[in-house]
Amino acid sequence: MAAGQRRHSFLEKRDYQVSRPNLQVALDHSDLPSAIADVVKVGAEVDIIEVGTILCLQAGEVAIQSMRALFPDKRVIADTKCADAGGTVAGNCRRAGADWMTVICCATLPTMIAAAKEVKEVQVELYGDWTFEQAQTWLEVGISQVIYHQSRDALFAGESWGEKDLEKVKRLIEMGFRVSVTGGLTIETLKLFSDLEVFTFIAGRGITEAKDLALAARAFQEEIKRIWE
Amino acid sequence: MAAGQRRHSFLEKRDYQVSRPNLQVALDHSDLPSAIADVVKVGAEVDIIEVGTILCLQAGEVAIQSMRALFPDKRVIADTKCADAGGTVAGNCRRAGADWMTVICCATLPTMIAAAKEVKEVQVELYGDWTFEQAQTWLEVGISQVIYHQSRDALFAGESWGEKDLEKVKRLIEMGFRVSVTGGLTIETLKLFSDLEVFTFIAGRGITEAKDLALAARAFQEEIKRIWE
Repeated sequence: MAAGQRRHSFLEKRDYQVSRPNLQVALDHSDLPSAIADVVKVGAEVDIIEVGTILCLQAGEVAIQSMRALFPDKRVIADTKCADAGGTVAGNCRRAGADWMTVICCATLPTMIAAAKEVKEVQVELYGDWTFEQAQTWLEVGISQVIYHQSRDALFAGESWGEKDLEKVKRLIEMGFRVSVTGGLTIETLKLFSDLEVFTFIAGRGITEAKDLALAARAFQEEIKRIWE
Repeated sequence: MAAGQRRHSFLEKRDYQVSRPNLQVALDHSDLPSAIADVVKVGAEVDIIEVGTILCLQAGEVAIQSMRALFPDKRVIADTKCADAGGTVAGNCRRAGADWMTVICCATLPTMIAAAKEVKEVQVELYGDWTFEQAQTWLEVGISQVIYHQSRDALFAGESWGEKDLEKVKRLIEMGFRVSVTGGLTIETLKLFSDLEVFTFIAGRGITEAKDLALAARAFQEEIKRIWE
């Protein structure tokens, strides 16, 4: 299928328009003040603001509340990587102001479904030995977002984006998922995905550790536009 | 092997003594004040205090700090169910006062190892389709605690403790793991485990939703003593 056709059907299936991949900043700070200091610099430049797992665990719901208060019109994601008590965790995230939240791929289907009832959408974080058969069961209960993750610790251990990752991302997109990708992304690595209809690129340190955060985010956006528009 | 012999070798392998299963209270509150109000009633009656995932995500590090301050001599566990950034999450938990923390079974081995370097011990939370082959790799890198978990959402969906659960717990113990069990435990269900050298029983609502929390915890302890001493 041609890229244009795929993009067209992609648009029709969703309740919002996607002309090119989104840019999401992951706030993986260990304290809320530094996360706030960073997000006020970069929030306007990105499409989605993620309260990262580290920040969720350190600061709690006030981190989500802060992002919602600072950016009332942006999509805010709580990266809880929820594994259990899906309804409770998701209800808490929704009340704090999150639009979407993440669940871990090894959570049970009832956990995912319970979470999906509370927030606008859940995204399944893919870690470890998940299978495409499992992924199909998520689609069947109406969960159509996954996050393909190069583990930060795996990256530190010397692993990186390769052909087998790109093949898996492609297959997930073809199954009907909106696929976000994350893990060690830089401006230079975006072109690896140029043949794929990636839903969202998630950048953490690639933005938050830049000298000029807004400039770094704009550079990501420009490269995304250059490739996908 | 006779129970007496197994218990003896069990003792020799560890740097602390276990004469019977521990009792752990899981604080899965959605706000810190109510968790504190409960833990001051019940903390002295239990062996281990767990800052549950829900509480970690809602209150952040101050939840761990509060438990450490209230019970300086108790073992405190942060149930982060960490899936990535193991070193950062574990360092944060240690600084907040946690002795142990949990990682999710689908985390990569580098994530688990990174976490294990920062806290005294990590415990692997078993959800979804983990395998005994994976479990063997954890043992081989020195991770010898697992938590066998009946998912709360699975329990709500009508699943419960059965023979296949007990068989898996038994096999994990025989592999050399200290196995904590959790999920819908009541005084009545403890005897299901009477043939097993369970390391810790984790009770949440079974204690925190009792009319008299201390009394409920003491009833658990008495049943544990009756069966295992």
